[in-house]
Amino acid sequence: MSEIIYGRKPVLEALKNQSPLEKLYLLESGEGGLKPIEALARESRVPFSRVPGDKLSQLSGTSHHQGVVAVLSAREYADLEEILAGAAKSPEPPFLLALEEVQDPHNLGSLIRTAEAAGIHGILIPRRHAVGLTGTVSKVAAGALEYMPVARVGNIGYTLKELKKQGFWIVGADGDAEKNYTRTDLTGPVALVLGGEDRGLSLPVRKECDLLVRIPMKGRINSLNVGVAGGILIFEIMRQRKVKG
Amino acid sequence: MSEIIYGRKPVLEALKNQSPLEKLYLLESGEGGLKPIEALARESRVPFSRVPGDKLSQLSGTSHHQGVVAVLSAREYADLEEILAGAAKSPEPPFLLALEEVQDPHNLGSLIRTAEAAGIHGILIPRRHAVGLTGTVSKVAAGALEYMPVARVGNIGYTLKELKKQGFWIVGADGDAEKNYTRTDLTGPVALVLGGEDRGLSLPVRKECDLLVRIPMKGRINSLNVGVAGGILIFEIMRQRKVKG
Repeated sequence: MSEIIYGRKPVLEALKNQSPLEKLYLLESGEGGLKPIEALARESRVPFSRVPGDKLSQLSGTSHHQGVVAVLSAREYADLEEILAGAAKSPEPPFLLALEEVQDPHNLGSLIRTAEAAGIHGILIPRRHAVGLTGTVSKVAAGALEYMPVARVGNIGYTLKELKKQGFWIVGADGDAEKNYTRTDLTGPVALVLGGEDRGLSLPVRKECDLLVRIPMKGRINSLNVGVAGGILIFEIMRQRKVKG
Repeated sequence: MSEIIYGRKPVLEALKNQSPLEKLYLLESGEGGLKPIEALARESRVPFSRVPGDKLSQLSGTSHHQGVVAVLSAREYADLEEILAGAAKSPEPPFLLALEEVQDPHNLGSLIRTAEAAGIHGILIPRRHAVGLTGTVSKVAAGALEYMPVARVGNIGYTLKELKKQGFWIVGADGDAEKNYTRTDLTGPVALVLGGEDRGLSLPVRKECDLLVRIPMKGRINSLNVGVAGGILIFEIMRQRKVKG
């Protein structure tokens, strides 16, 4: 599973060395000694929460956590710029996957595995309200995390707006959309956007989409797991691009 | 999760009443008193294992299990005949999903959910070496198990042979197949066959396939979760059938 470090000095060192950190937990009754850690976390854009001491003891397995626990990421995050540079070098049109609030590590791991198999250039996830690159995600991705760059961004909607300026076609998956995903041209540079497990795309993200597509269904429950829906949409884009393999 | 019953009389009653049973566990040092239960389990084709007493105590949470524990199924199994009758009444060409040795309840649950959303007529699973309709499967299926008939068969290969006689086209998924799944006509009556997590289709099952298809990939790890691969293949068949929705 995820690796944990605790104590003020070890965590401060990890921040200074830019070790990939999933998240910081700081004691809610914050004393002065935690201030430099909080400041550096903000600067390094590592998400952090203020939590009770019990939670810190539980996470670290000790009461000697000195008010701070950090969860290491299973892999270093990529920068969006790196991902775009990689995509630009590819012979295929750029293809990114953007995820809004996917919470379940099994779903993120499965999407990373599928994206790698499809040759997607990178994955964007939000810094907050979403699962990150934890040990479980890495395990479910079955080796694919090694090769799939994942960038953490502050705001998915804002990032999509930027991608649009760079010529990406922003395609959102939405059960209520009018367009059938198989009858829509998805062969250009595309950022495919999927919502989280609980609700679909948020309004601000929906607003940035050039196009919303629907997977038509014929049953009574008619809901797909986000990992499966992602797989169906990703491989339809592959089909349209007439990938040989 | 799954419901458990134990003790000779309750289990014998459950068998006599044809309660849907996932599996029976019998004490390995089998005494005479278990013989009628074993005989009835064979007759009713309920899978059973001989296990040590410790395992029975663990499953039942008591030492008063009298040498027998039964796991109730989350839903009653359908008969293959029922599934075929239902398919014959449908306006669409018959579409079945056959699974060989899928072991992970998350994958079976996810496939049931996807199959329901695609309007598949029924799912076939083997009676042994595969996960059945457990509580976890039902939970992951997110309500879809209620509407998706699942039949347990003794031998998938034999069942496919029978389906072939009835006009089904048997299509197996195989990473090494020559044919690209998107360039193969899959619009007729079809039984789509998927292998388990650990290895693909077995030789006997492969032999019954009219056709093996491959999902082309472009990455380095290039492996898909069986639930995701199933979703991609199922919805490609839907696309080819030009389902309106």
